[in-house]
Amino acid sequence: MRDIKPLIAPRSIAVIGASANPTKSGGVLFHNLVTGNFKGPLYPINRTAAEVMGVRAYPVLADVPEKVDLVYIVLPRQHVEDAIKQCVAAGARAACIITAGFSEASQEGRADEERLRDIARASGLLLAGPNTIGMVNAEVGMMGSFVNFPHWEAGGVSFFTQTGIFTGALMLSVMSAATQRLPVGKSIDVGNKVDVDELDFLNYVADDPGTKVIGFYIESIRNPPAFFEKAHQVCRSKPIVVLKPGRTRAGAAASAAHTGSPASADAALDAALAQHGLARAEDEDDFLNALRALVMLPRPRGRRVAIATTSGALGVIATDLVVEGGLELASFEPVTLAAMRSILPEWLAPANPFDFWIGIDVKGPREAHETGLTAVFVDPNVDLVLCTLLAPGNADFAEFGALMRRLRRSYDKPVAVVIYGGEAQQRWTADLEGANVPVFRTTRAGARALSLLVQATL
Amino acid sequence: MRDIKPLIAPRSIAVIGASANPTKSGGVLFHNLVTGNFKGPLYPINRTAAEVMGVRAYPVLADVPEKVDLVYIVLPRQHVEDAIKQCVAAGARAACIITAGFSEASQEGRADEERLRDIARASGLLLAGPNTIGMVNAEVGMMGSFVNFPHWEAGGVSFFTQTGIFTGALMLSVMSAATQRLPVGKSIDVGNKVDVDELDFLNYVADDPGTKVIGFYIESIRNPPAFFEKAHQVCRSKPIVVLKPGRTRAGAAASAAHTGSPASADAALDAALAQHGLARAEDEDDFLNALRALVMLPRPRGRRVAIATTSGALGVIATDLVVEGGLELASFEPVTLAAMRSILPEWLAPANPFDFWIGIDVKGPREAHETGLTAVFVDPNVDLVLCTLLAPGNADFAEFGALMRRLRRSYDKPVAVVIYGGEAQQRWTADLEGANVPVFRTTRAGARALSLLVQATL
Repeated sequence: MRDIKPLIAPRSIAVIGASANPTKSGGVLFHNLVTGNFKGPLYPINRTAAEVMGVRAYPVLADVPEKVDLVYIVLPRQHVEDAIKQCVAAGARAACIITAGFSEASQEGRADEERLRDIARASGLLLAGPNTIGMVNAEVGMMGSFVNFPHWEAGGVSFFTQTGIFTGALMLSVMSAATQRLPVGKSIDVGNKVDVDELDFLNYVADDPGTKVIGFYIESIRNPPAFFEKAHQVCRSKPIVVLKPGRTRAGAAASAAHTGSPASADAALDAALAQHGLARAEDEDDFLNALRALVMLPRPRGRRVAIATTSGALGVIATDLVVEGGLELASFEPVTLAAMRSILPEWLAPANPFDFWIGIDVKGPREAHETGLTAVFVDPNVDLVLCTLLAPGNADFAEFGALMRRLRRSYDKPVAVVIYGGEAQQRWTADLEGANVPVFRTTRAGARALSLLVQATL
Repeated sequence: MRDIKPLIAPRSIAVIGASANPTKSGGVLFHNLVTGNFKGPLYPINRTAAEVMGVRAYPVLADVPEKVDLVYIVLPRQHVEDAIKQCVAAGARAACIITAGFSEASQEGRADEERLRDIARASGLLLAGPNTIGMVNAEVGMMGSFVNFPHWEAGGVSFFTQTGIFTGALMLSVMSAATQRLPVGKSIDVGNKVDVDELDFLNYVADDPGTKVIGFYIESIRNPPAFFEKAHQVCRSKPIVVLKPGRTRAGAAASAAHTGSPASADAALDAALAQHGLARAEDEDDFLNALRALVMLPRPRGRRVAIATTSGALGVIATDLVVEGGLELASFEPVTLAAMRSILPEWLAPANPFDFWIGIDVKGPREAHETGLTAVFVDPNVDLVLCTLLAPGNADFAEFGALMRRLRRSYDKPVAVVIYGGEAQQRWTADLEGANVPVFRTTRAGARALSLLVQATL
C-alpha cells in the first residue's frame, strides 16, 4: 500500500504550463490555485515568463529550489512525456496530467499513456490522469482544477471520479445552489486512471479524519477483490456510494469508449457492491442526493420507513418508490395511531403512508404538522421518515423550519423532506438551511436518497 | 356517451358555501372564481349574506333566476346531501362536491356517497367529487379551485386527476417556476370519482380543440375496456400520459386507502397501457416532464436517439437511461461523422453518444456547439436528440439560445436539453424560454421525457 498524500494533500505544487492567459486551461488552473489560497509554495513553470500572476516563475522544473510534492501538467499532448521525465529527474513525488488525448482517444494515445505509466512506476512517481479536470482539497487550499468554483463549500464528502469535465460542471451546479449545497472537502479526478486508482484513494480516505462519506464515479475497477475487501471494511465507519454507469450493453460500450477502460461485467459488479455494503446510484442526481443524505443524516437502525404526507397521491407514489428501493413500511404503535387520530376527523383511520392533510382543516397547519410529524418521529418502529409535504397558502405556517429542526435534533432519525407548493416551498426550504435536514425536489429523489442511505449503512 | 360540458366548460356557476372568509375553502374558491374572471354569471349561495365579494348572493339555489350549469358545493359533510337535492330541484346540470370525508374515509361515508350518486344519476345531474380540489378551465376563466394559482399558464395540456390537494400543490410548484412552466388549459379533479370519470373526460377532450395533450392521474379505471378503446383512438392525435401508482403491493394498498377505489391489477394495467399506445409515468416528476415534452415537441418519426454531450460521463449515464426507456442509439451517417470530425482532434473518433467537449478547446464553444449539434439534428437516422451539456465558463457562449432555437425550428425533431454548470446554466435556460425546447434538471428526467414521448406517440 502506497501513500498518495503528496498527490491529494501536497505541501508544495508546481504547474508546468502555468500562464497568465485566462482562456487557457493552464491559466485557469494556476489562477484557481492562487486565488484558492493554497497553503504551501506555488511554482509556475514557464519557459518565457519571469512571473505568473505575481508568483515567481521558473523556466524548467529542475530550477525550482525544492523537491515539490505535486506537479500539474497542462501542456499539449506531445510535450507531456518530457514533462513527466522532468518530474522524475527533479524528484517530484506526484504528477497530475490534465491533458487529454491518450487512451480514451486512440491506440497511439494508449501506447503513449502506457509509456508515461512505465516511466512513473519505475521511479515511484504517483500519477493522476491524463484527461482530468484536476483535484480539489479544501483542507490545504488546493483548488487544483481548470474549472473555477467561486462558491466551493467544504465538508465531509470526499469524491473520487474517473472522468473529465463532468465532475467540474456537476460541482458548479451543486455549488451554485442557494440552499442544500453538498459539502465536498476533497475531489480527486484521475481521468484515464493510468496509475493512481480507486484503491489508492480508498486507502487514503480510510485514515483521513476529514472524510465522513465517500463517493466514487467509476467506469471500471482495476482490482475488484482488493477494492471490495477494503471498501467492505471502510464503509462500516464511512459510507460509500458508487455511481458506475454501463448497466446496459450500449452503456457499457459507451463507457469503454469514454475512458478507454474495458467495462466490468455489470451483474457481477452489482452483486459485489450489494454484498459488501456499498450503495449504487443509478445516475448523477441519485448520486448527489445519496451523498447529501449520508453527510447530513445519522445511520438508520433499520429499514422501516414512515411516510408522512399531506398528499394522499404523493403518499401512494412514495410507497411504490420506497418499496422498490428495498425499504419496508413501518407499522405504527397504538400510541402513535392515537396521536394521529387526535388531528383527524373521527371517520378517518391513520395508516402508513400517514396522510394528515385533512388535519390542517381540523387543527390548523401548525398543530397538524407538529402533532402528525412528532408522532412518526417518536414511534420506535420507525427507522426513517419520508415527509412529502404540500405548502399552498392554507397549509403554510411560520414555524415549519423550527418544527423540523426540533424533530431532527430530538429524535436523531434519518429524514428526507420533499415540498411542493408556491412561495412557502422556497421559505420552508430556506428555513432548513444548516439544520442537517436534506430537502429533495421530487418524491423519487427523496425516496431514493433514503434507500441508498440504507444500502450504504446497513 | 354523455356530454360533460356543463361541468368542464359551464356558462354559469353557483357556489353553495361561498363566503367572504379567506381562511375557509368556500371563501378561497369563490374569491378565485371572481378574480379569475369567469366569463359567465356567478351566484354565491349564502343563507345570511346579501352579497359576497360584491357579487349578489342568494339564500338558496332555488332563488337563482336561471338554471345554472355548475354548482360548487363547499359545505360540511352533513349538509352535502341537502345541497345535491337543491341542485336537482333547481335544474342545475352539474355539481362539484369539494367536501371530503366520504368513501375515502369510512363505510358510512361510502354509503353517503353512494346515495349522492343515486340521487344525481336518477336526475341526470353530472357529479364531480367528493373530496376534490376543484376544476380549472382557462378558456372560460373558471379558476374553480380552493387553492389559489396566481401565475396560471394556460395552454394545450388537459389534466384529469383522481385525488385531492396533490394537483393543487403540484400546479403551484409548476406555475411558480420562472421558466419552463407547463401550460395547462384544463384541470379537472374528480376526487373520489363518484360519477364523472376518466371515460367521460376522455370523450370530452377528444373533441375539444383546446386540448393537445392529455394527462391522467388515476388510481383506478372504472371501465377498462371502454376506456382503452377510446384512448387508443384519441391518442393518435392527442397523446396521453398516465400516472397510476400502485405498482407494488404496498402501493396498491395505499392507493385503495387513499381514494376508496379498489386497486387495479397492475401488470394487466401496465400491459393495456402499452398495448393501446399510452405512456405510463412512474412518479409525479416523470409525469410533468413527459407532458412538457409532449406539449412542446413534434412527434418523433422513430425511436433512434442521438446523445450529444459535452460530458463523456453524462453520455454514458444517458445511454443506460435511454436504452432502459426503450429507445435505440442512432447510427450516424458518414457525412455526419465527417462533420463531427471537423471539430475534434484527429485522434478522436466520434460515436453515439457524441462527446464533443474537446471540440470546445479545438474550435471554441460557439463553433463546437454549432457544428456538433447541427450534425446530429441533420442526420436522417436521428429521430430524437438528447443534449446533456456542461456550461462552465470556458464552454459558455452568448449564442446558445439562438442556436438551439434555430435547430429546433429548422429540423423539427424532438429534443430534450439538460444543462449543468453555474451562471451560464441559468442564462442558457432563460434564453430557451418560449422556444418549445424543454429543459430538464437531470439526465434521467431528459431521457425519461423522450422515452415517454415515444411511448405516447409511436
